Amino acid sequence: MAKQTIPNRIILPEEQIPRQWYNIRADMKDAVPPLLNPGTREPLKEEELYPIFCKALAHQELDDATRFVDIPEEVYACYKTFRPSPLHRAYRLEQLLDTPARIYYKFEGNNTSGSHKLNSAIAQAYYAKAEGMRGLTTETGAGQWGTALAMACAYFHLPLTVYMVKGSYEQKPYRRGIIQTFGAEIIPSPSDTTNVGRAILAEHPTTTGSLGCAISEAVEKAVTTPDTRYVLGSVLNQVLLHQSVIGLEAAAALALVDEYPDIVIGCAGGGSNLGGLAAPFLRDKLTGKAAPRILAVEPASCPSFTRGKYVYDFCDTGKVTPLAKMYTLGSGFIPAANHAGGLRYHGMSPILSKLYHDGWLEAVSYEQTAVFDAATTFAKVEGILPAPESSHAIRGAIDEALKCKESGEAKTILFGLTGTGYFDMMAYEQFLSRTMTDHVPTDEELAENFPED
Amino acid sequence: MAKQTIPNRIILPEEQIPRQWYNIRADMKDAVPPLLNPGTREPLKEEELYPIFCKALAHQELDDATRFVDIPEEVYACYKTFRPSPLHRAYRLEQLLDTPARIYYKFEGNNTSGSHKLNSAIAQAYYAKAEGMRGLTTETGAGQWGTALAMACAYFHLPLTVYMVKGSYEQKPYRRGIIQTFGAEIIPSPSDTTNVGRAILAEHPTTTGSLGCAISEAVEKAVTTPDTRYVLGSVLNQVLLHQSVIGLEAAAALALVDEYPDIVIGCAGGGSNLGGLAAPFLRDKLTGKAAPRILAVEPASCPSFTRGKYVYDFCDTGKVTPLAKMYTLGSGFIPAANHAGGLRYHGMSPILSKLYHDGWLEAVSYEQTAVFDAATTFAKVEGILPAPESSHAIRGAIDEALKCKESGEAKTILFGLTGTGYFDMMAYEQFLSRTMTDHVPTDEELAENFPED
Repeated sequence: MAKQTIPNRIILPEEQIPRQWYNIRADMKDAVPPLLNPGTREPLKEEELYPIFCKALAHQELDDATRFVDIPEEVYACYKTFRPSPLHRAYRLEQLLDTPARIYYKFEGNNTSGSHKLNSAIAQAYYAKAEGMRGLTTETGAGQWGTALAMACAYFHLPLTVYMVKGSYEQKPYRRGIIQTFGAEIIPSPSDTTNVGRAILAEHPTTTGSLGCAISEAVEKAVTTPDTRYVLGSVLNQVLLHQSVIGLEAAAALALVDEYPDIVIGCAGGGSNLGGLAAPFLRDKLTGKAAPRILAVEPASCPSFTRGKYVYDFCDTGKVTPLAKMYTLGSGFIPAANHAGGLRYHGMSPILSKLYHDGWLEAVSYEQTAVFDAATTFAKVEGILPAPESSHAIRGAIDEALKCKESGEAKTILFGLTGTGYFDMMAYEQFLSRTMTDHVPTDEELAENFPED
Repeated sequence: MAKQTIPNRIILPEEQIPRQWYNIRADMKDAVPPLLNPGTREPLKEEELYPIFCKALAHQELDDATRFVDIPEEVYACYKTFRPSPLHRAYRLEQLLDTPARIYYKFEGNNTSGSHKLNSAIAQAYYAKAEGMRGLTTETGAGQWGTALAMACAYFHLPLTVYMVKGSYEQKPYRRGIIQTFGAEIIPSPSDTTNVGRAILAEHPTTTGSLGCAISEAVEKAVTTPDTRYVLGSVLNQVLLHQSVIGLEAAAALALVDEYPDIVIGCAGGGSNLGGLAAPFLRDKLTGKAAPRILAVEPASCPSFTRGKYVYDFCDTGKVTPLAKMYTLGSGFIPAANHAGGLRYHGMSPILSKLYHDGWLEAVSYEQTAVFDAATTFAKVEGILPAPESSHAIRGAIDEALKCKESGEAKTILFGLTGTGYFDMMAYEQFLSRTMTDHVPTDEELAENFPED
């Protein structure tokens, strides 16, 4: 074996944080199908998004022409407090697997929010502040996005109201505590602060809520409160744009050690991390410069890529949002109650959906016990406790490395380690005590929620 | 104001992780008073420690002559997975305080154990493994040390049994889950696995345990199990030796930007972090090269430096350990039940105690609401959720920076941010909901536990 010359962690100097985000739509020969107005089924105009998103973000959402978008100075200043994030060489994992593959992972969990979500939260909070907004609303389920946005809003002194699914609110006091520490208001959803919340409470007084209901409340609150907008942490084109910093940094760090990935692997829920990590490598592929494999890993219990349909569907359960063409299980789909592995969204980023449809990326799904098995293995050798979401990518990377062992190929594998699992210990405990179970929906179960073509 | 040229985070290259630990005892003109055998009251010989500590660590514990100790290759390889840790410039905190002071903090929380404890855990696990040990035992209260040691033992494939105070075991399932994920066995203490545990259970069947009892069980288990040793995460001379990597890296990073601290501030419970952070600066002071102020910050509810006595005392509540000369509140002292700020140990590192006694460092104490106020302020501007322990140093640094504002002095302040507060959200919630209270023990309360001179 060659002497180890590549460091365990490659951390770019501060001045190499990207100055621009990369918009992959500018390099896609076939355009991403437009968002549709749910009433008219006509392509949405930018102005139609203004009541929900601030103008700069509405523009970014629809802009498929600008290849590079300048990162505002204020956003850059904030990125500098936690970026560049480290690119790790997984020496000990390679050793354990006895693989000739070289495994790298870009770790986005070393900030207090614990995940990559902060990259977009800062951008979205900044633009809202710059346009004179006096408040933001959002929803949060597990709490990762709520934490990231609370941090971003504290940074820009912008009031934030988070509708947190009531069940999570009650079961996750730690998450609640962090969000409140950063000064955000948290309202357990459904609540009596919105019409939709009051209606649901009247009908189901003891409900523990749902993400769909929390989204509806956050949107209603935003559009009925002056100078207030709604923000979302994944799926959207603007979010993939902001998350491109992950991939741009990863590409620069790999170049420093003369590496280029044969395979890029990311977990996929709404697609924000995979879209960001893979962006520059997909660009190389779209422009014919290189041909890396891009692999999305999703839960078998919420298999939008591998078993969903590529059709127009609502982005939310309440069916109040625009329609997006995407791989979807139907906006009414909810993963089985035993699913603890995250990545629960029914649809998938329209950008990634289009690329997948056109054959630019692959997808694979795993059951959650296989994912937690990879997570605990990884934690022991690499010393980082991964989030269940991130652990899908770990599972994918381990299996690709084991294939290399069989074939004897010394491939370069890059995967995204999106965050830490400190708040997912109940799921880890289920796995360790062997009470965690898997659930793969049957075709009949999936058919119940499928949207019409 | 000058243009910002110093980065937000100064991260040394991997090859600048120190190759040697620094042993401050070699530069102390007056020796640290020796540990005493509790039976004979004679200075302890190295061999007398062998039943508890492995030989290399027993040697380090008593060696006050070797100035620099080589870091074993295996330990160094593990340090490289999470070190060097970043030195942050607190630009936004400075701006908020409107102070001319330049504030730096060395952040040790960016590893899964969430604190600096990992630096010594790895060393202690390595030496035990190298001497052929087949297991380690320890105790943990809040769980930080237990997590760090579980990670270290997973790294070296060494079985670990953690006696966790039963109250914490039941209230902190997340901590328990992390420790188990790294493969350690956790036993709620008191337990029926030791004589001392069985005796306590017989007398108090419903007790939720105490740190003193957990220590006694861990020690008994180690000395009665073949090839098994006991390890401890603070107070000991060997732990301060290992933690010197914090200070050595901090000094090197400051030198990179032409800075030298006027004040070095650390929280102080058992003293492991402050001793490690301050080590090279104390060396400069002891050898007359420089004269930085060194400031220990402790909780007013557990004020060993500021209100304790400098006498020989037991290191544990059960009075089975050697006697150490240290600032102590008495081995029977337990902080008031409302104390949530950490740093609960009754004594203080013998090295730091001697230096404090001789005037080389200062100490100050704060009530916990003042500490959590600093913690939440810091989190909002710096984007890191600090551990309550670390927040004592933040409080101290803020107050020193405010003094600079009054005097107009542009001092350089360095403080240690030992870890993150993810598992302390209940305390944060108490603070945010204004149900947190302070308690300063009266002289009479302290007198109850004071050891005899």
